[in-house]
Amino acid sequence: MTPSQAYEQLTATIRDISMLDSIGSFMSWDEHTYMPPKGTDHRANQQTLIARMSHEQFTSPRVGELIQAVEQSDLIQDPESDAAANVRELRRSYDRARKLPTSLVEELTRTAVMSQSAWATAKGKSDYATFEPWLDKTLQLKRQEAQCIGYQSNPYDALLDAFEPGETAAGIQQVFQPLRQRLVELIGRIGNSARTAPMEVLERTFPAAIQEKLSREAAAASGFDFQAGRLDVTVHPFCQNIGPGDTRITTRYDEHFFSDSFFSTIHETGHALYEQGLPKEKHFGLPIAEAVSLGIHESQSRMWENFVGRGGAFWKYFFPRTQQAFGDVMKDISPDQWLFAINDVRPSLIRTESDETTYNLHVMLRFEIEQAMLLDEIKAHDNPAAWNERMKNYLGVSPPDDAQGCLQDIHWSMGAIGYFPTYSLGNLYAAQFFEQARKDLGDLDGMFEKGEFLPLLGWLREKIHIHGKRYTAKQLIKRVTGSELSAEPLVRHLEKNAKAFYGV
Amino acid sequence: MTPSQAYEQLTATIRDISMLDSIGSFMSWDEHTYMPPKGTDHRANQQTLIARMSHEQFTSPRVGELIQAVEQSDLIQDPESDAAANVRELRRSYDRARKLPTSLVEELTRTAVMSQSAWATAKGKSDYATFEPWLDKTLQLKRQEAQCIGYQSNPYDALLDAFEPGETAAGIQQVFQPLRQRLVELIGRIGNSARTAPMEVLERTFPAAIQEKLSREAAAASGFDFQAGRLDVTVHPFCQNIGPGDTRITTRYDEHFFSDSFFSTIHETGHALYEQGLPKEKHFGLPIAEAVSLGIHESQSRMWENFVGRGGAFWKYFFPRTQQAFGDVMKDISPDQWLFAINDVRPSLIRTESDETTYNLHVMLRFEIEQAMLLDEIKAHDNPAAWNERMKNYLGVSPPDDAQGCLQDIHWSMGAIGYFPTYSLGNLYAAQFFEQARKDLGDLDGMFEKGEFLPLLGWLREKIHIHGKRYTAKQLIKRVTGSELSAEPLVRHLEKNAKAFYGV
Repeated sequence: MTPSQAYEQLTATIRDISMLDSIGSFMSWDEHTYMPPKGTDHRANQQTLIARMSHEQFTSPRVGELIQAVEQSDLIQDPESDAAANVRELRRSYDRARKLPTSLVEELTRTAVMSQSAWATAKGKSDYATFEPWLDKTLQLKRQEAQCIGYQSNPYDALLDAFEPGETAAGIQQVFQPLRQRLVELIGRIGNSARTAPMEVLERTFPAAIQEKLSREAAAASGFDFQAGRLDVTVHPFCQNIGPGDTRITTRYDEHFFSDSFFSTIHETGHALYEQGLPKEKHFGLPIAEAVSLGIHESQSRMWENFVGRGGAFWKYFFPRTQQAFGDVMKDISPDQWLFAINDVRPSLIRTESDETTYNLHVMLRFEIEQAMLLDEIKAHDNPAAWNERMKNYLGVSPPDDAQGCLQDIHWSMGAIGYFPTYSLGNLYAAQFFEQARKDLGDLDGMFEKGEFLPLLGWLREKIHIHGKRYTAKQLIKRVTGSELSAEPLVRHLEKNAKAFYGV
Repeated sequence: MTPSQAYEQLTATIRDISMLDSIGSFMSWDEHTYMPPKGTDHRANQQTLIARMSHEQFTSPRVGELIQAVEQSDLIQDPESDAAANVRELRRSYDRARKLPTSLVEELTRTAVMSQSAWATAKGKSDYATFEPWLDKTLQLKRQEAQCIGYQSNPYDALLDAFEPGETAAGIQQVFQPLRQRLVELIGRIGNSARTAPMEVLERTFPAAIQEKLSREAAAASGFDFQAGRLDVTVHPFCQNIGPGDTRITTRYDEHFFSDSFFSTIHETGHALYEQGLPKEKHFGLPIAEAVSLGIHESQSRMWENFVGRGGAFWKYFFPRTQQAFGDVMKDISPDQWLFAINDVRPSLIRTESDETTYNLHVMLRFEIEQAMLLDEIKAHDNPAAWNERMKNYLGVSPPDDAQGCLQDIHWSMGAIGYFPTYSLGNLYAAQFFEQARKDLGDLDGMFEKGEFLPLLGWLREKIHIHGKRYTAKQLIKRVTGSELSAEPLVRHLEKNAKAFYGV
C-alpha cells in the first residue's frame, strides 16, 4: 500500500467514525431539548452503543497501522499540510483512546445520559440529594479515566488535556493566580465606586416571544445561518455541532431579566459561527475541520457575547430595535442606562449571568472544587458546602439554594471535569484576538453601529475558523496576534470598562 | 453451544441491531420536524451509515446459524412461545434481508432522505418537476429491490410483503373489488340525499394554540403518555416509534379547518397507543415487542380516529370542552351540526382529510398507480396525469394543482411503495375489532360519553398490543373476533352512518 492509499483509507475510516460521533451529538441535542422523560433509559442505551462502536472502530489496530504508515511517509513533510495536521491530531487522539477500555467508555456514556437527566430534575427541585449519587459515580469513573490515560503529578491533567490539548492544571494556575489578584483588586475598586448600574431596566417584563425575535435577529445579523441551524429552548444553553449544514444553538427565556437569554443566545451564536465556519463540507470528520480546543471555541462565543454584544457600538445599532420591539416596556429607558446595566459589575450567584469581570472568579472556584473532588479531597456529599464557602470567600455572596449554587451548571453531570478553566482561557483568547481584529479591520465600532458584523466574521473565518485544528491553540494565537497568550488584553478591556462605567 | 445459549446470543445481537434501527427512526423524526434544510445531505450520510451497519450485522452468516440452531431445537415446540414467535419472524426478515445487497440498502436509504426533502419542497411550491427525478430514481431502486426479493407474478408483492407480511396484490384486489362497488353505490346514494352537512361550522377561525390544547387533551384522555412521548408539528402527520418510553406523534394545524389537525392527532395517537402498549420494556428489539403489520397498526389509528373520535358518544363528552375552548367562535353551533359536519361524506381531494367512506377510493387509486409505476406502465413523468384522471373517474373531482394532487402524500418519497393498501386493510380490521370490543365491553358509548376511554384501551392492550408479532394478522383477527377478516363490519358501520346522517 502506498502512503497515499494509507492516508485515503485512514481518512475514510475516520469519516465513518466521525459520522457515528455526529449521531451521538445529535442525540445529545435532543436529550436537552425534546426527549420525553421516560425516553432517558433507551437513549442511554442508544448512546452507549454508538460510543462503543465508535471507540472500537477508532482503537482498532488497523487505524494505528494506517496512522503510522502516513507518519513514516513524506506526506507529512510540510507540517502545515492537511495530511500532517490530520495525522498529528489523530495520533494524539488515537494514543489517548487506546488507553481507555471500551467498558469504561460505555459506562461513562451511559452514566452521562442518566446523570444529566438526574441533574435536570435535581436542579428543577433544587434537590442536591437527587444528583449526589450520580456525581459520586461520575467522579469514580473520571478517576479511572485519569488513571488509564496517565499523568505526571495531577490526575486532573489527564482530563483537562481532552478539552485543551497540551494544557495542565499547573499551567492554568500560572495564568489564574495573577489574573485573580488583578480582578479582585478591580472588583474592589468598582465596589467602592459611587456609581451603580440601573439594573431595574433589565428586570422589567420582557415577553419571551419578543426576546426570541430579537435573539434571532441578533444571531442572523452576526452571520448565523438559520438554514444550517436552529435555535431552541433548553435548561442550560449550549451549542451542538451535528455536522455540515447542521449546527444547533439553544437558550432559555427569563421574562423578568433581559440579559440571561439575550447574551446566552449571542454567546452560543459565537460558538455556532465557529462551527459553521469550519471547512466541514470538504473535510468532514477530520481534525482540520474541527475546533482547535475548547479555549479557542470559547474565545469565539465570548468575543461575540462580550466584546461585540455588550459594546456601545452594538447597542447604537440594536437599542432602537430593542426598544421598539418591547413597546411601552422600554420607552423611558435611555441607551446609556441600558448600556450601563448590561455592563454592570457586581458579585452574583450564577456564572452564566455574571458580568465579565467577576465571571472568571466563578470559573476559578469550579476549577478548585473539581480538582479537589477528583482527588477525593472534597466528597460529592460535601460539594454544596465547599461551593457555598468559596462563593462567600471569593464573591461575598451566599446561594439561597443549591439550584443557584452547585447545581447551576450542567458540566459535572456530563462528566466534563476539566472543562471549566477553558472558559477563562476563552476570555483571554477573545480579548487578544479582538484587539488584533481592531488593528486589522480599522473602525470596527463604526461598522457595528451600522449593523455590519460580517467584516468581523470574515476576519474570524480567515484567521481562525478555516484552519480547523491545523494549528494548535498556542500556534494559532501567535500566528494571528504575533504574541503568546497574555492576560493583558483582557485586563485592559475590563479596566477600560471600569473607567467608562464606574469612573474608577 | 446449547439451544438456549444460541437463543440468548441471537436476541442480544438482534437487540443491538434494533438499537441501531431505533437511532434511524429517531433521525427520521427529526428530518420531519426540526432538521434545518442544509442538514439534509449530512443526515442522508448518517442514515446511510446506520442502515449499512444494521444490514451488515443482521445479514451476517452468524445470525443465520443462530436462527437455525434455535429452529432445530425444542425451544420452538410451542409455536406461541416467545422463542418460537421471535424465531419465526426473524427467519422471515433474515431471508428477506439476505437477498438485498448492502449497496442497494444504502442507496435506498440515501435516496429516501434526499427524496423526502425534495418532496417537501415540491409540495410547498406545488412544483412536481422538483420531485419527479427523485420518484423516478425511487421507482428504479424499488424495481431492483423487488427483483432481489423475488415474486411469483407481480413485483409489487415483493414490496407489499414488507409492510403486510403474507399479503399479495391479488389478495388485496379480491378485497378491494367488492368493497369498491359497495362504496360507490353508497356514495351515490349519499350524493342523492337531500341533506347536506353544515361544513361551514368546521371552517371558521380556530387558533392553532387552542387546537393544540384540545388535541393534547384528547390524546391524553385516550391514554397517550406524554411523559413517554411528544406531539410536534410537521408537514405530513406521522407517528414515530423511537424506543421504550419514546413514541412521538406529529400533526399540522389549519386555522381554517378544524378537522384536519384534530383527527390527524387522534389518528396518530391511535398508532402511538399501540406502540406504547407493545411489551418493549421487557422485549425491546424482538418481534414479540413489535407491531404485527401496517394493516394492524392502521386498525388502531383508524379505530381511535373514526370509530371513537367521530362518534356521537365522544362528542357528547368533548363538544362542550371544544365549544368552551374556542369561545365565541363556536357559540352558535349545536352538537348535532358539529357531528354531522365531522361525518360529512363527499368526494374530496386530500386523502388524510377525506371522510371514512370515500377514503378507501383514495387508497385504491394509489394502489393502482403505484403498481403501474412499478411495472413502468406509468412513468414518473405521467404520474400527475394518471392521478388527475383517476380522481375525476373515481371521485369526480379535479385537483387544482399537484400539491393537492399527486404530491399530497409523503409515501412515495420515502420509497414506501406497497404501503397504501394497508390503510384500507386497517379500516377493515378496525371495524371488525371495534364490533368485537362493543360485544366484549358492553356499553362503550356510555363510557365515552363520560370521557372514559381507558376501558377500550385496556381491551386493545390485552387483545392486541401485548402480543406484538406473536400472532400473524390473520391469526390475530381470528383469535380476537372469531372470524376471518371481512368487509362486512366496515360496510355496516358506513351504512349505519349514512342512515343516521343522510337518511339513506
